[in-house]
Amino acid sequence: MPQITAVTVEDVRFPTSLTADGSDAMNKDGDYSATYVVLHTDGADTVGAPLGGYGLTFTIGRGNDIVAAAALHQARRLVGQDIDAMAADMGAVYRLLTSDSQLRWLGPEKGVVHLSLAAVLNASWDLVARRAGKPLWQLLVDMSPEQLVDIADLRYLSDALTRAEALEILHAKRDTKAARVAELAATGYPAYTTSAGWLGYDDDKLRRLCQEAVDTGYGYVKLKVGADLDDDIRRCSIAREVIGPDRKLMIDANQVWDVGQAVEWVRALARFEPLWIEEPTSPDDILGHAAIRRAVAPVGVATGEHCHNRVMFKQLFQADAIDFCQLDTGRLASVNEIVAVLLLAAKYDVPVCPHAGGVGLCEMVQHVSILDYVAVSGDLTNRVTEFVDHLHEHFTDPCVVRDTGSGSGYVLPTAPGYSTRMHPGSVEQYRFPDGDYWASGAGAQTAPALVSGH
Amino acid sequence: MPQITAVTVEDVRFPTSLTADGSDAMNKDGDYSATYVVLHTDGADTVGAPLGGYGLTFTIGRGNDIVAAAALHQARRLVGQDIDAMAADMGAVYRLLTSDSQLRWLGPEKGVVHLSLAAVLNASWDLVARRAGKPLWQLLVDMSPEQLVDIADLRYLSDALTRAEALEILHAKRDTKAARVAELAATGYPAYTTSAGWLGYDDDKLRRLCQEAVDTGYGYVKLKVGADLDDDIRRCSIAREVIGPDRKLMIDANQVWDVGQAVEWVRALARFEPLWIEEPTSPDDILGHAAIRRAVAPVGVATGEHCHNRVMFKQLFQADAIDFCQLDTGRLASVNEIVAVLLLAAKYDVPVCPHAGGVGLCEMVQHVSILDYVAVSGDLTNRVTEFVDHLHEHFTDPCVVRDTGSGSGYVLPTAPGYSTRMHPGSVEQYRFPDGDYWASGAGAQTAPALVSGH
Repeated sequence: MPQITAVTVEDVRFPTSLTADGSDAMNKDGDYSATYVVLHTDGADTVGAPLGGYGLTFTIGRGNDIVAAAALHQARRLVGQDIDAMAADMGAVYRLLTSDSQLRWLGPEKGVVHLSLAAVLNASWDLVARRAGKPLWQLLVDMSPEQLVDIADLRYLSDALTRAEALEILHAKRDTKAARVAELAATGYPAYTTSAGWLGYDDDKLRRLCQEAVDTGYGYVKLKVGADLDDDIRRCSIAREVIGPDRKLMIDANQVWDVGQAVEWVRALARFEPLWIEEPTSPDDILGHAAIRRAVAPVGVATGEHCHNRVMFKQLFQADAIDFCQLDTGRLASVNEIVAVLLLAAKYDVPVCPHAGGVGLCEMVQHVSILDYVAVSGDLTNRVTEFVDHLHEHFTDPCVVRDTGSGSGYVLPTAPGYSTRMHPGSVEQYRFPDGDYWASGAGAQTAPALVSGH
Repeated sequence: MPQITAVTVEDVRFPTSLTADGSDAMNKDGDYSATYVVLHTDGADTVGAPLGGYGLTFTIGRGNDIVAAAALHQARRLVGQDIDAMAADMGAVYRLLTSDSQLRWLGPEKGVVHLSLAAVLNASWDLVARRAGKPLWQLLVDMSPEQLVDIADLRYLSDALTRAEALEILHAKRDTKAARVAELAATGYPAYTTSAGWLGYDDDKLRRLCQEAVDTGYGYVKLKVGADLDDDIRRCSIAREVIGPDRKLMIDANQVWDVGQAVEWVRALARFEPLWIEEPTSPDDILGHAAIRRAVAPVGVATGEHCHNRVMFKQLFQADAIDFCQLDTGRLASVNEIVAVLLLAAKYDVPVCPHAGGVGLCEMVQHVSILDYVAVSGDLTNRVTEFVDHLHEHFTDPCVVRDTGSGSGYVLPTAPGYSTRMHPGSVEQYRFPDGDYWASGAGAQTAPALVSGH
């Protein structure tokens, strides 16, 4: 039986700060980065190639080394594990990786140790999907309701969602899964684009990119806001003018406001009829989001990319704080925690519109959105998944978004795994600080190496 | 003008797991550890000795290396800083250390990067207090209301506490500070002990330590609970029998329960009349704490040692979720964030009873509690600060708790600084993994070194 024989963790950074890709009111100069975990095995995949597991979490540069160090702490627990035994009980793998109470203290279930846990578990899920020869969404969709609930972490959720309720949600969708898979195979999963609206782009570039989004079949466009109200009014005017009255406009403040300020600012932009305001304030402020939501309706409130675990999502739902759940596949503890959040969202009838972009997030979220529609929510109403068109060239099985005739959508992945295997050449080039790109000195000012303080 | 010339960060671990000191229902085998930051300068203190800043955060073993790596990232920003300029604007020091949006992504304001920030800022506050020749509490008590508000981080709090309200709270106490300092000089700040009640202690040891607590003048004793209800009933019976009906008994579950389970369990222990149930569930579950509090009254609800920032405390207050605020000086971002929480607590009239124990937490909390009484709350009602009697021998200015005639209390510190300078010999002996203790192999099984996964 094949086993995990070794693990490697790489600190991979792309110099996105040079082009203002990804710039917003809080994060002006991110270097999109991946803590990249590889689980090496002595086995072969279904076509006889060496079997490995490839997973990541996303950061924006400095500190990616810290996440990598934490991931190595966690991943080495997997060395010697039997892969088929893992596949048979991924709940146990989750518990193994979260059982270290000394590491737990550093969160718990948040920050660096949770990001790194996501990377290690993402690699584990990629591994078992590759072993099964299925794309991850298919592996999950093929599970019974009982199997899905068994891998979900429902701890601390029972006041909002019991195991029986979770099973009920899944059983209600069980017999119609095949029809929804067939539907998505025809249409793709609905996508929207953020590529147009980074804060560092000038008006001409904004106008051009909005037009491109329209031409490519997008029904949704998202803009970054929150640095300057006059600028935001001008940029929203441009975007609304280009996309017309029928397509949806979303705005994203990346946590820059206090609660009262958020209410004022969003009201000042309400005439552009945004579908949602994203991250209006601190991601920890559940009651603040609820207050903002009450004050800015009918503009919806969205958050989740920095929502650090299922307990926070539970409360966002309990407090009626959000209209859209933007869970993040690099921040939650992989499928085990994501399934719990999908079930909570279904119970509270909040649409899940996952956060993506970054590095590899689009590759992952397509699997999550497909799982959500096919097996959990059974609903596409108000659902649309983020897509940002950069850095996909570094993946061996990049996601594909195209206009299927009913708007742009993610095409169902067919390759085995979680779609997050990187080209070895990309890792070699952008590994920090010794990859060819960084060693050449090109990015020295962008992301200084950690040096001893002496 | 003296400057910071270099920084060092040490990973110091004490093998407390060998004796079950610190054992509870969630953390069975912690090795109490410090990420220890030293700010070296080219200056002298007020008595002509070399001037340095010494600060720490507390962890329980594995992963302390990760926190240390993060602290080094942050601390190196201080190299070259003028110490008198720092002292004149510690709000600016806070903003400097929190201004890195790439590191912010790893929290934000939580987990490893927030723990490490606490260590670096604690060292900075220690440094400026040593430079002034004052214990930290004195430095803070001597500040004007405006100065205190200027160093506090009030971001994301304005819906609960405005700057004007903060000033009003402080101005109301300003003219009577000296009287409260004199009072505490006579009585000490009220303390309670957790040394008696660790979960790993047997009944005889529990009984003996409870009796010692009574004999030493403690009016409060705290027990760990949550592993087994029958055990808890037996242990609470013993404790209540020894301490009698008039002294206070507290119980602490260290996050092991779901909300409904917490309510049932606490009700089953209610006949022992606990003053509070501490950490009944996930520290992130604000609404869960509120639900538990409503269900178990008159037993109070306490939490805070894992409450990761001021935004979470704000909501605990807004939701009427807790009766006691147990802020942690290693988890919050030092004085700058602690003052914000003290002000919030004063506004919402929730007593602050800081978490302590661990390594160095008792040394720090005494300064915070004194500040709270003298300058912020002006009230001792229902206030009592944790004390655990171990590991103090590693500090050059250890806290002192003694029976002052009106119960056990923390004696006002008189040495300059934040009381967290460690003996160089202790650092040498317990530095991980190369200190004498760990290098000898004595603790090899307790805290394995991080090795490459290859």
